[in-house]
Amino acid sequence: MSDGNFDVEPWCVRERGLDLDDLSQTESVFALANGHLGLRGTLDEGEPTGLGGTYLNGFHERRPLPHAESAYGQPEVGETTVNVTDGKIIRLLVDDELFDVRYGELLRHERTLDLRAGTLHREVHWRSPSKREVRVRSTRMVSLPQRGVAAIHYEVEPVGTHARVVVQSELIANETLGGGQAPAGGDPRTAAALDDALIADDHHIKGELVLLIHHTRRSGLRMAAAMDHVIEGPEGTDVTVEAADDVGRVMITADVPQGQTLRITKFLAYGWSARRSVSSVRAQVRGTVAEARHTGWDKLCELQREYLDRFWDGADVQVDGDDQLQQAVRFALFHVLQAGARGERRAIAAKGLTGSGYDGHAFWDTESFVLPVLSYTAPFAAGDALRWRLSTLEAARERASQLGLRGAAFPWRTIAGGECSGYWPASTAAFHVNADIADAATRHARATADEGFDREVALPLLVETARLWASLGHHDALDEFHVAGVTGPDEYSAVADDNVYTNLMAKRNLEHAADAVQRFAQVAADELDVHDDEVAAWRHAAERMCIPFHKRLQVHPQAQGFLTHAFWDFEDTEPDQYPLMLHFPYFDLYRRQVVKQADLVLALFTCGHAFTPEQKARDFAYYEALTVRDSSLSACTQAIVAAETGHLELAYDYLGEAALMDLHDLEHNTASGLHIASLAGSWLALVAGFGGMRDYGGELHFAPRLPPAINRLAFRLNYCERRLGVEVEREQATYSLGAGEPLTLEHHGVQLTVAVDDPQTRPIEPIEPPEPVSQPPGRAPRRRTPVPATR
Amino acid sequence: MSDGNFDVEPWCVRERGLDLDDLSQTESVFALANGHLGLRGTLDEGEPTGLGGTYLNGFHERRPLPHAESAYGQPEVGETTVNVTDGKIIRLLVDDELFDVRYGELLRHERTLDLRAGTLHREVHWRSPSKREVRVRSTRMVSLPQRGVAAIHYEVEPVGTHARVVVQSELIANETLGGGQAPAGGDPRTAAALDDALIADDHHIKGELVLLIHHTRRSGLRMAAAMDHVIEGPEGTDVTVEAADDVGRVMITADVPQGQTLRITKFLAYGWSARRSVSSVRAQVRGTVAEARHTGWDKLCELQREYLDRFWDGADVQVDGDDQLQQAVRFALFHVLQAGARGERRAIAAKGLTGSGYDGHAFWDTESFVLPVLSYTAPFAAGDALRWRLSTLEAARERASQLGLRGAAFPWRTIAGGECSGYWPASTAAFHVNADIADAATRHARATADEGFDREVALPLLVETARLWASLGHHDALDEFHVAGVTGPDEYSAVADDNVYTNLMAKRNLEHAADAVQRFAQVAADELDVHDDEVAAWRHAAERMCIPFHKRLQVHPQAQGFLTHAFWDFEDTEPDQYPLMLHFPYFDLYRRQVVKQADLVLALFTCGHAFTPEQKARDFAYYEALTVRDSSLSACTQAIVAAETGHLELAYDYLGEAALMDLHDLEHNTASGLHIASLAGSWLALVAGFGGMRDYGGELHFAPRLPPAINRLAFRLNYCERRLGVEVEREQATYSLGAGEPLTLEHHGVQLTVAVDDPQTRPIEPIEPPEPVSQPPGRAPRRRTPVPATR
Repeated sequence: MSDGNFDVEPWCVRERGLDLDDLSQTESVFALANGHLGLRGTLDEGEPTGLGGTYLNGFHERRPLPHAESAYGQPEVGETTVNVTDGKIIRLLVDDELFDVRYGELLRHERTLDLRAGTLHREVHWRSPSKREVRVRSTRMVSLPQRGVAAIHYEVEPVGTHARVVVQSELIANETLGGGQAPAGGDPRTAAALDDALIADDHHIKGELVLLIHHTRRSGLRMAAAMDHVIEGPEGTDVTVEAADDVGRVMITADVPQGQTLRITKFLAYGWSARRSVSSVRAQVRGTVAEARHTGWDKLCELQREYLDRFWDGADVQVDGDDQLQQAVRFALFHVLQAGARGERRAIAAKGLTGSGYDGHAFWDTESFVLPVLSYTAPFAAGDALRWRLSTLEAARERASQLGLRGAAFPWRTIAGGECSGYWPASTAAFHVNADIADAATRHARATADEGFDREVALPLLVETARLWASLGHHDALDEFHVAGVTGPDEYSAVADDNVYTNLMAKRNLEHAADAVQRFAQVAADELDVHDDEVAAWRHAAERMCIPFHKRLQVHPQAQGFLTHAFWDFEDTEPDQYPLMLHFPYFDLYRRQVVKQADLVLALFTCGHAFTPEQKARDFAYYEALTVRDSSLSACTQAIVAAETGHLELAYDYLGEAALMDLHDLEHNTASGLHIASLAGSWLALVAGFGGMRDYGGELHFAPRLPPAINRLAFRLNYCERRLGVEVEREQATYSLGAGEPLTLEHHGVQLTVAVDDPQTRPIEPIEPPEPVSQPPGRAPRRRTPVPATR
Repeated sequence: MSDGNFDVEPWCVRERGLDLDDLSQTESVFALANGHLGLRGTLDEGEPTGLGGTYLNGFHERRPLPHAESAYGQPEVGETTVNVTDGKIIRLLVDDELFDVRYGELLRHERTLDLRAGTLHREVHWRSPSKREVRVRSTRMVSLPQRGVAAIHYEVEPVGTHARVVVQSELIANETLGGGQAPAGGDPRTAAALDDALIADDHHIKGELVLLIHHTRRSGLRMAAAMDHVIEGPEGTDVTVEAADDVGRVMITADVPQGQTLRITKFLAYGWSARRSVSSVRAQVRGTVAEARHTGWDKLCELQREYLDRFWDGADVQVDGDDQLQQAVRFALFHVLQAGARGERRAIAAKGLTGSGYDGHAFWDTESFVLPVLSYTAPFAAGDALRWRLSTLEAARERASQLGLRGAAFPWRTIAGGECSGYWPASTAAFHVNADIADAATRHARATADEGFDREVALPLLVETARLWASLGHHDALDEFHVAGVTGPDEYSAVADDNVYTNLMAKRNLEHAADAVQRFAQVAADELDVHDDEVAAWRHAAERMCIPFHKRLQVHPQAQGFLTHAFWDFEDTEPDQYPLMLHFPYFDLYRRQVVKQADLVLALFTCGHAFTPEQKARDFAYYEALTVRDSSLSACTQAIVAAETGHLELAYDYLGEAALMDLHDLEHNTASGLHIASLAGSWLALVAGFGGMRDYGGELHFAPRLPPAINRLAFRLNYCERRLGVEVEREQATYSLGAGEPLTLEHHGVQLTVAVDDPQTRPIEPIEPPEPVSQPPGRAPRRRTPVPATR
């Protein structure tokens, strides 16, 4: 699918026709969500489907984690997202023939994800096997303003003659997932299947409303789903309603004359709770669906658009010169928003609510890739995601204690806060997740200037993670502070000493924690029992943090010893042996110089102030030659550092890869859900890459510089209660302030102050092109050429 | 049980009384085996039992190995030893009361393992709850000369009055293992339970003979067990015989007058095959039991004693001054012999055939600890064990190929040759097992001067393991050869670069392979496709092998980076937190300076010529302070190196620990089987420790020196078709030759030649006591004081 299935348009993702082989991918691309509720972009009629799914953020089942050999500290229980009651299904019979795209003729099939309307629209013109024709139009939304609500507007219109039409609107629990098209077995990244996860508590009918209540077997969570309907049909339209434990059905029968239309609005409501009773959950969802019906379809659409208008007003990115990238970055921002908008103290999972990949777990992706976007574009969502982390602090403290450490050890992968990884070298040992969380909290507090957040959320996160580092590392005989036996971002190395990324992030974590304690000394002492000695120890460890550097090579090792390892035998690795982890054992990957994803190069971005420009150039060149990009978390970081080191065309290629990861299904696994972090990464690649934005605290820095293919890049940021606009052209950049107090920032190292109605324009000096860098054979990003709009 | 349950006698292990809490331990201590068949030392009547068990070497079932996260190259199937058909059971009823040691009164209970007779003898005087008294005498043996045969001689004698006696001799398949006394769950070292592993093929009765045939569900192995009986009872003794799928029973009913005895000899025969049909296996075992019956009890005993006389004649060790040690080393040699004597191309498992611990798997223990004893004391058994390794070469080649390596990668733990470990950092990565195998093969070829073995067994093992090392390591820019990302013997570190033990052993492996190819150039070229370039590369890699050394500390790091790690916090570790692996996560152990078992110190022994005496002293002192001895494979090595570095009393303490591991149940897990390698280690501690024997090829070296508690140490060795005697006294040592050509050897660095009838005596110079060394708090070995014989 390398050229994409979708038209290139500025604000829409449109699919013309229907390729059944790509159903799973399009279900992910067309997923609608609001951070609380997610519907995969399945066809209304439910079948065929790739991997159907409806998700409620945080709603999960537990499952035993088996181990061939038991060991102290291994998690014994995992958490898996549950495919909850499906309310998306609207089946259609035309003159007794079931509408099914696999039979008869599809004269037209078009689906459009509208990034401003926040809807998925579908137009179908179908000729049945017996030559009856019908037009179907449906519009689906998951409401951003009304958290528990989704709605579908469904229209059927006979063509050429009248038709007997039966519409069955369903609510189905414990549905069997799409047959045979689930992602291939053997790939550790796919989800554990859970059969019959939901146990019925109650079902309930009232008019055209059906409500089903279920709970999970082991985790004991309770959920309800309701559907209600407004039906506009020709005279004589009949409605019957039925319900059982796992199914609700509203059957609408109409004889629709030529030129007339049967219109159905289906309102869906969802809710879940870990504590509430059946009647309480019932009442909640009953209320939600009543409110949705009261709001009505048109008003829901209007509110949805208003919500998105506000978002785009503060977050839009304009890319002139490459319409496909323009579309891709908006698609990315839309899905990043959908992943977190109404999460409200639930995690932002790696796949958002677009699929069951990675079991629905959240990873470090959230704090390291998603929140650096949301803190500037939808700060409320970033704040909520960090409040969710804070809500798991007790579990993280317990985990640290179990591991013999102080402070908090946040999980590598989780839904509810417990560690769910069964392979410790790539999870427990990847302690950097704690520094990533601390960093995201600090950034968010600064970017929002929200003192309440700083005190209530950032302070405890910083203090407890600093405690972790202080107990995890040690001072050697020369007083250098080492962090031994940990795993950095690159999952093709593990359990090494003094990973540079980890140590730099830990150093910052310790410093920021000490700073935060200074800001809130009393709270820190009273509520977190922080003492002066402890803070002094943090500062001392930070100051003495070991950052290994190889003098002869003049390169930073990813970790101690890395540069003495043998190189991977790239020449003898076949193209179909990537990703390497599916074709080679970990032991072999770990002992060689081969990099799955930016690790030292990520440090060049996130801790850029710790490197000289010369070091950045040499380090980037060295690691480019080793990096195979078997992770979707790599291309965006490589784009950013390529841009900073002057490799603008290479940066542009990487940006294309990050931005089109899902639209073009580059890793062939979009089926199980979108790569939310890579989508966020396309924003980072533009804003931190070509915009050169860095936010290390203090002032915002920009060092914009465009690649040849992009003529103009404009983006907006929320920053300290201001709205900052940045417009980058080839030879100059203009900074403008939409609201708020004047702001001092840096442009290519030179300070300037921008005020409302006083935009500042500064020149961009041309640079000498650097020495080219190279990638492992066959692993260079595809050379990108700009793609214009379809029409 | 720190003072032991057993009388101290030179040639027996005698238990007086019966402590039901120690049943599992005594079942291991009193186990009888011949390397093919093993019977745990259960009570004749079958109950109570700790962990009953009957094992056939190599007979196993497969089971799925579960993984929380799948990964390339992980073994998906494990192998587990099967508790086969139990023929040990002889139940007794006296006047309708079942003889059961838990009821009534045990007026006398004594069990004696006789190390020269090769039998387990039991004497019981029991008063039933209704005051009937009876004497029971039983003698059990597993025949060393007749591989498939065991036998039990059983006598019942009423005391004070006549008695109605019923004896039921049974053969039971799929018996339930001893209730509730199995080793505690949560310990990864205990075996996976297998319920109903055996599926009945056939059963068969003929006279007092019953034969049962079964096969395993998944591995498809077939076994048969038969029992036949000779019964001498008073007139009117009745015999009935019955059999079903899983049970055979011979019931002997007699009215025994006072002063008379009912005598039963039970002959047992076992056989198994991976290929043979039911009728073929039946015929085999039918023949075996017929031969046993034909031989008769007395002759079986006579042959058993003759077999052992020959063994002791060439293998006995005499220790004057500590009778308990004297007993322990003979007990150890006896069990080491039992583990391997008639293995005949099957493995010598970590627990021998004495229990189901470690699932019945063989590890590197065999080649590194057991074969260095057997090659000098029972060379036929050592040769067979190495022929078993060779028989698994194809599986090892496949494993290497799966891992992307050349040559052969032998499994970390196995029964049939497949890798059965589910935790790769402590198994797959522990490649040293391959060098250990190569080393054992070389040693055996030299010690036996067996050219056939050298060519047929040692050569292919050496070549294929050398190929492994050549592909596993790499030359760096300075041409140094590194082996990265491997795990050495110490399981509290893993996946490190340039483990000194591994690299030294790999170096030797490469050199010995090149030497072997030189000896058998044509065979190597024709059968193993060895080319000159390849051999040159081996020699070059060996020559350039990296052996890291820390100049400032003047100590060898266990592996690169080890010496920069933080020290384990020994002060804050409670005594009940040992073994550490059950109370701390691997990640924490791996990143600290803490040593489970001798690793660098093992290199000081096995590769002693690579270290100066000063280095040995410094290295030993450094690692002593870090070594917690959470493995039974450590004490013997520490004893050897302590002796070499002049810490003679410390060596004596460690020897005590190694020798009494099982007799005193020092690690509280003798229940699941004996520690065969630690038992072998007690011989090593005496012979290589106080005898100072080293065999690096060329000449045998001795550097004997006794600790204060031992006045005299004498041992015998099989060496190059000679029988060498060494007698060490405090101030001199005498070397004598029992047979064969004169032999040149070294005594404390000085050459001497010993010939038949021309013993050589040399003085032992006193040494200055070295600086004391220390162990982690609480982890010093118990100070040993000599223990005299019980009577």
